[in-house]
Amino acid sequence: MAVRWFYLAVLALSSLGLMCILFTIYWMRYWHDGFAWDGTMLMFNCHPVLMVTGMVVLYSAASLVYRLPQSWVGPKLPWKIGHAAMHLMAFILTVLGLFAVFKFHNHSKIPHLYSLHSWLGITAVFLFACQWLLGFVVFLLPWASLQLRSLLKPFHVFFGASILSLAIASVVSGINEKLFFSLKNGTSLYSNLPGEADFANSTGMLVVVFGLLVLYILLASPWKRPELGMQAERQALLRGGE
Amino acid sequence: MAVRWFYLAVLALSSLGLMCILFTIYWMRYWHDGFAWDGTMLMFNCHPVLMVTGMVVLYSAASLVYRLPQSWVGPKLPWKIGHAAMHLMAFILTVLGLFAVFKFHNHSKIPHLYSLHSWLGITAVFLFACQWLLGFVVFLLPWASLQLRSLLKPFHVFFGASILSLAIASVVSGINEKLFFSLKNGTSLYSNLPGEADFANSTGMLVVVFGLLVLYILLASPWKRPELGMQAERQALLRGGE
Repeated sequence: MAVRWFYLAVLALSSLGLMCILFTIYWMRYWHDGFAWDGTMLMFNCHPVLMVTGMVVLYSAASLVYRLPQSWVGPKLPWKIGHAAMHLMAFILTVLGLFAVFKFHNHSKIPHLYSLHSWLGITAVFLFACQWLLGFVVFLLPWASLQLRSLLKPFHVFFGASILSLAIASVVSGINEKLFFSLKNGTSLYSNLPGEADFANSTGMLVVVFGLLVLYILLASPWKRPELGMQAERQALLRGGE
Repeated sequence: MAVRWFYLAVLALSSLGLMCILFTIYWMRYWHDGFAWDGTMLMFNCHPVLMVTGMVVLYSAASLVYRLPQSWVGPKLPWKIGHAAMHLMAFILTVLGLFAVFKFHNHSKIPHLYSLHSWLGITAVFLFACQWLLGFVVFLLPWASLQLRSLLKPFHVFFGASILSLAIASVVSGINEKLFFSLKNGTSLYSNLPGEADFANSTGMLVVVFGLLVLYILLASPWKRPELGMQAERQALLRGGE
């Protein structure tokens, strides 16, 4: 029963995450002429897609690695390497997403980092870098003591969830900002809720629902690597029992 | 030691919360001519102050009632009543904050609820109303069984934290949106980071730091009403011991 709910949640989460990415791509292709890597507005269009893919969806998938019941038995090291490698991929996509907007700003002589959206976003990316490095040094390299690891683990989990929350707040403010930029003329005013506004607002709400579901599984669900001494329950879950 | 850290956190949190409110008031008074309750832009100025005060600061204070060690001993009912009453006050301020922006929109013939900021904000307020009503029926009225209460409690805590997260994302996107509205002419473009932009961006970052600290204490800190059988530790904490 528990394992059935878990895989139902994985299915819902994967579908939602994929929809977040596809909706963002569709928004940029259908209403903003698609993508290029040349410093123009078409390069800016890569920014929302890369940020949603890297900093929200892949980041979330990487964060939830230890919630897979398969990771609860046997050696932990391969799962740790997977967790770190997926986060590194998420970070690379995020940096590419930042590069896209910085290059577009340079090309169009727009100042960098002035809006609250950008202040929050750059803080999230900076904290993500710190979190990855600290995680690598403390949890992956072999020299940290078990005491230090168990002392830092709750902070690592909490900061991981906080960075995702900041990323989602950045996505919401970014979509809002982009719609005020692009829907300001004639009949297609943002306040008249044209098709693009409805679609992009819905994409933002979808990202929020996805993020809350990830945070629920990460922080509040019973799907966790059991503490020592809970072998029986763990075995039951892996066998598909209650 | 533990109790000293707790009261240090309470002091930091109270100061931060007060600063969030005072900064928002100062922003609206110094750069936007203060407040009125007449449907004009001066009535809109009440909106950010009431939302930050009600939906962020007072909501947070109400959420953290059970983290006070004094609430861990003796009858729980007075603390429950305090928790519900503070949340009700937070909700009333929130509704007044919504009323301020709706009346301003009516007065200026601006459509309601078109931006992602407003979609997210109204969702947060709707969930807040549901959460309060469900909490009142299940946890305050006497007829729900202990089993039902302990089944619903983790969801109640998680949704409480989620609503605060949505509120903070709404505040961030709202400040961002307001600055694009008001800083669009001549030398005071938002992208030139004039004084108002620096000040309001910092206010937004302050709200985010406040929110993360509240979520840490709510979800991840050891300051919780101990489960039955942990009487000794609880007594030690109240006496100021480790």
